[in-house]
Amino acid sequence: MAQDCLFCKIIAGEIPATVVYEDDDVVAFKDISPQAPVHVLIVPRAHIERLSDATEADASLLGKIVLAGNRVARLSGVAKSGYRLIANTGPDGGQEVFHVHFHVLGGKRLGRMVS
Amino acid sequence: MAQDCLFCKIIAGEIPATVVYEDDDVVAFKDISPQAPVHVLIVPRAHIERLSDATEADASLLGKIVLAGNRVARLSGVAKSGYRLIANTGPDGGQEVFHVHFHVLGGKRLGRMVS
Repeated sequence: MAQDCLFCKIIAGEIPATVVYEDDDVVAFKDISPQAPVHVLIVPRAHIERLSDATEADASLLGKIVLAGNRVARLSGVAKSGYRLIANTGPDGGQEVFHVHFHVLGGKRLGRMVS
Repeated sequence: MAQDCLFCKIIAGEIPATVVYEDDDVVAFKDISPQAPVHVLIVPRAHIERLSDATEADASLLGKIVLAGNRVARLSGVAKSGYRLIANTGPDGGQEVFHVHFHVLGGKRLGRMVS
């Protein structure tokens, strides 16, 4: 756990969040500023700052995060209607919290991937 | 290889594409309708129609796709400036080709994740 990391504090239960799924590797919770009817963040329990920091040793964990996206989509009722899985990194990506997170967005036609 | 799959044909070299990276598991090539200065698609060589079809058995492959995104970002010069990794599935996601693919977008401030 990294000090002063918002997502580490959510994982530790020190900051409340609406958790929709969790397992040994990841925690998924609703985004507090949703950009679609379904907007869930999936974070690894391990503190990795940026996706670009991930190495071959993280391949299995990254795969589990993507599969957790499928699970969150099913739990959120958007597996068939469709969804978008997004990871932002660095300034141009617009990453705001420096603990790797994947967004699951759905519940409407999502339109363009950038603006 | 699936018949009539555009991406299977690109992987097989039957349809030309600007390949920027490939290995035993994935092929990455430039999107022909780029939505940002850097817009690369990463596809698994294995034909999986939808991300929502992926199972636990695909975890390692999915992790390799995400790591290939990092590699593509480095090769494209956007690893530090930042990038967005996106997988769309189903109608709301706007998936157009039914062979799993992850977009790597970068080279400008990417703005909103949906529209």
